[in-house]
Amino acid sequence: MIHFSADQLKMMEKKLLVALSIILNLVFTIHILYNNSTAWNPTWTNRAAVEAEGAASVSCSGHGRAYVDSFGVLDGNKPSCECNNCYTGKDCSILVPDCHPFWMQNAEGSAVLESGWHRMSYLFHKDGSYVSAELEKIIRKLHNVVGNAVTDKRFIIFGTGATQLIAASVHALSLTNSSSSPARLLASVPYYATYKEQAEFFNSSNFKFEGDASAWKKSKGNDNITKVIEVVTSPSNPDGKLKRAVLDGPNVKTIHDCAYYWPHFSPTTHQVDEDLSLFSLSKATGHAGSRFGWALVKDKYIYENMKRYIYLSSMGVSRDTQLHVLQLLKVVVGGGGEEMFHFGHETLKKRWEILNKIFSMSTRFSLQTIKPEYCNYFKKVRDFTPSYAWVKCERLEDTNCYEIFRQAKITGRDGKLFGTEERFVRLSLIRSQDDFDQLIDTLKKFVSQEVVGTDSI
Amino acid sequence: MIHFSADQLKMMEKKLLVALSIILNLVFTIHILYNNSTAWNPTWTNRAAVEAEGAASVSCSGHGRAYVDSFGVLDGNKPSCECNNCYTGKDCSILVPDCHPFWMQNAEGSAVLESGWHRMSYLFHKDGSYVSAELEKIIRKLHNVVGNAVTDKRFIIFGTGATQLIAASVHALSLTNSSSSPARLLASVPYYATYKEQAEFFNSSNFKFEGDASAWKKSKGNDNITKVIEVVTSPSNPDGKLKRAVLDGPNVKTIHDCAYYWPHFSPTTHQVDEDLSLFSLSKATGHAGSRFGWALVKDKYIYENMKRYIYLSSMGVSRDTQLHVLQLLKVVVGGGGEEMFHFGHETLKKRWEILNKIFSMSTRFSLQTIKPEYCNYFKKVRDFTPSYAWVKCERLEDTNCYEIFRQAKITGRDGKLFGTEERFVRLSLIRSQDDFDQLIDTLKKFVSQEVVGTDSI
Repeated sequence: MIHFSADQLKMMEKKLLVALSIILNLVFTIHILYNNSTAWNPTWTNRAAVEAEGAASVSCSGHGRAYVDSFGVLDGNKPSCECNNCYTGKDCSILVPDCHPFWMQNAEGSAVLESGWHRMSYLFHKDGSYVSAELEKIIRKLHNVVGNAVTDKRFIIFGTGATQLIAASVHALSLTNSSSSPARLLASVPYYATYKEQAEFFNSSNFKFEGDASAWKKSKGNDNITKVIEVVTSPSNPDGKLKRAVLDGPNVKTIHDCAYYWPHFSPTTHQVDEDLSLFSLSKATGHAGSRFGWALVKDKYIYENMKRYIYLSSMGVSRDTQLHVLQLLKVVVGGGGEEMFHFGHETLKKRWEILNKIFSMSTRFSLQTIKPEYCNYFKKVRDFTPSYAWVKCERLEDTNCYEIFRQAKITGRDGKLFGTEERFVRLSLIRSQDDFDQLIDTLKKFVSQEVVGTDSI
Repeated sequence: MIHFSADQLKMMEKKLLVALSIILNLVFTIHILYNNSTAWNPTWTNRAAVEAEGAASVSCSGHGRAYVDSFGVLDGNKPSCECNNCYTGKDCSILVPDCHPFWMQNAEGSAVLESGWHRMSYLFHKDGSYVSAELEKIIRKLHNVVGNAVTDKRFIIFGTGATQLIAASVHALSLTNSSSSPARLLASVPYYATYKEQAEFFNSSNFKFEGDASAWKKSKGNDNITKVIEVVTSPSNPDGKLKRAVLDGPNVKTIHDCAYYWPHFSPTTHQVDEDLSLFSLSKATGHAGSRFGWALVKDKYIYENMKRYIYLSSMGVSRDTQLHVLQLLKVVVGGGGEEMFHFGHETLKKRWEILNKIFSMSTRFSLQTIKPEYCNYFKKVRDFTPSYAWVKCERLEDTNCYEIFRQAKITGRDGKLFGTEERFVRLSLIRSQDDFDQLIDTLKKFVSQEVVGTDSI
C-alpha cells in the first residue's frame, strides 16, 4: 500500500479541483463557441460581419466601445475606442480625475444660496399667487426646447411631485361627474401602483379605482353614461412603452401621465397636446427628493379645481423648492438641454447594453422589447432606454418572480403591484452608478448560475 | 365797493381754510382733554397716576417708550426711553443704519447653499426614510428649549405645512372608526376654516365635517357610539385663546392644533402632552412659504397611517425644504431660542399696544380680550399677543363686519368662514412692518371718523 501524508492528500485534492475547473471551463467555451457557430450562418452578411467583429475586437478596457462608423474610418483608419464618461486614453484605460455625474459637473451653475428671509410669505406677488412666475416661464421654455409637449393655451399648476398632481387631477375630473354614482378610475395593465393606492386609501366618495381599462371596455363598460377617468401613462411605468388611451366617449376624461416622456428614456415621437398632462422633475432632472411636478391643463374649470386641491392639501409647493428648481432648469435650458439629455441618454444606453447582454444569455428571464422609433429630439431613429427593466420569469414553475429575485438579493417591485401577474418584476435602472454596478454584478452571477445549473453539461 | 383780484381771493380762501383747520384742531384737543379729565378720578391712585403720567410724558419720538420701572429709577433717575428695534438715542430719534428684521439680522447663520446634487434621491438613509434624522433631532430640542411640548415617547411626522398634517391626521383617526357611519369632524366655534374646507372638498367616505363641537355635545351627540374627531386649536385661530377639548369619551379622538403655541403669541402655560399635536414652521419662525409642519404622535398605528397619507399624497416633504428648515432651527435653538422669541414677542407686544390704543377710542368696534397668564418661557405673567385681531362690530346695524372694513380698504377675513357670525372680522397682525404700519394708518383714520361722525361735537 502507498501511504499519503495529510499534506499530500490536501495537495492532490487541490490539483484535482484545479483540473476539474479547467475542464469545466473548456466545456463551457466549446459550448459557447458551438452555439455561436450554429447561430451564425453567414452568406451575404459576411463582409459586414467581419467589419463588425473587427470593431468589436478593439479592446477598450471595458470602459468604452469601438464602432464601425467611428471617426476616421473613411480615411482607412481602424475603428477606435469611444470612451465612457470619466474614461479616456486610446484604450479607455485612464480614469479621468475628478470626473463626476452631471449635476456635479455643473456645480457652479446649479448651486443656489437661500437666505434666511427668502420668500417667507405664502404669496409670491401682489397678485396673490403661490407660484413663481419665472419658474412657470422656464418650464414652458423647457418643453419648447425639448419639443415633448405643447404649452400654448395651457395653464400650469405646480405640485409637491407628480404624486400630488395625480390626486389633484383625478379629484378635479371627478367633479365634472353629473351622475350620482362615483366616477370609475381606470388604467391599462400593467399600471403605476400609486393610482390604485391613492384612490383606495383616500377613499373619496367621488370616485373608485376599477382596475384595467381594457377589461372595463370589454365588459360592462362603454355605456356612455358612467363617468370614467382613464390614466394613460406614456411612456408606461413599469415597461417604458408609449401608450394611447383605451377609452373614448363623452363620459370619458383622460389624464396623461408623461413623467417619463423625456429624451433620456424614450424617443420623443410627438408633442404631447392633451387636455391634461403631468410631468415630474424627478424623472426630468433626477431630483426626486425635491418633490416637484407640474401639470399642463387646457380647461379653466379643471385648472381651478386642481389649484384648489393643491391649496387645500398643502397651500402650494415649498418656495424653497421652487427656487431650487428654477436654478436647475436654468442649467438644463441654458445648454439647449443638450448637455443633460445627452448625458442621461448615454448613461441609460450603456446600462441597457449591459443589461441586454446579460439577459440575452438567459432563457429563464426575459426583458421587455420595444421597437426603435424616430426621436424628434435626437433627430434619428433610436432605441427606447426606459428607466425600468420589466422582467418576466419564463419558467412555468417560477410563478413569483419578485421572490425569485429577492432570494438572489435583488430587490425589485412585484408585478402584482402593477395589476398584473407575479410572473413579472420591475428592476430600477435609475440609481447611482455604484448601485447599478452592484445590481449588474449580482445579476451576472444569478444568470450565470442558471447557465451552469440547467442549460449546460 | 372794494375790489379783490383773483389772486387776493385765492389767498383769503387759503387763510380761511388754515384758520378753520386750527379751530377744528383746538376743538378736538379740548374734547380729548375734557374726556380724559372726566375719565380720571384720582383719590388713592393719585401718586401712582402722577408717576405714570410722568413716565408717559417722556418723549421717545414715537419710536420707544419710558416705563415707571425703567433702569435707574430706584437711584432717583427719571424714567428714560426704551427704544423700539432699529431706533436709538436718548429720545429714540436716531434710526440705526442697516437695521433689519430678525432673519436679516441673522443672515450669515441662516443662509444655506444648496448644491445641484443635494439629496436627489427619495430616500435619506439606507433605512429608507423620507425624513432628515437631524431635523427630527433639532425639532425635539426646540420643544425642550421652549418647553411648549413633550416629545418623549412621541413619533414625529413631517408634512408640507401643518395643512397637509391636518388632512393626514383626520384621515388616520377616521381609520380607527369601526362603525359603518362616517366619523364626525368637529371644532369649537370660531374655528379655522381649513378643517371644514378640506373635509368638504376632499369628500372622503370616512368622515364628514359637522361643525361646532359644543352644539354637537348639546344635541344628539354623546351617544358614545358615533365616532367623533374633535380638532382643538389652542391658541385658537382666529382669537388666540387657549382652548380645551369639549368632547370626551371612548368614541372621541382629538387633534391638538398647536400651530400658534409659541412664546411670541401666547404665554406657554404648560407642556402639550397629547396623543396627537400639530405644529407649523410658518407660525414658529415666520417661514410660511417653506410649507413645513410636524406632528407629535403617541400611537404607532395612527403614526403609520399618517405616514402612509403623507407618502401617498406627496412622497414626503421636499428635501430642499428640510435642509432649509434645519439651518433655520439651528439659528433658533442656537441662542436658546431667546433671540427669536424675544424679537417676535417684542414686535407683537408693540403692535398690540398700538392696536389696543386705537380700538380703545372706538365704541363701534371691539377687540378680543384675554386675561394675562404666567408664561413658563418668559417666567412672568404676561399678556397674550395673538397673531390676529378678532374684531367685533358692536352696532346692531353693522351685521357684516367684513364688508364694513372692506369699504374702509381694510381686508380681513369674514367671521362666517370661522363658523360664526358675520359680525366678526379677523385682521392679521403677522405681516411685514410696512404692511402693518399701513394697516394702522388706515385703521386710525377709520376709527377717528367714527369719533368725528357720531360721538363728538
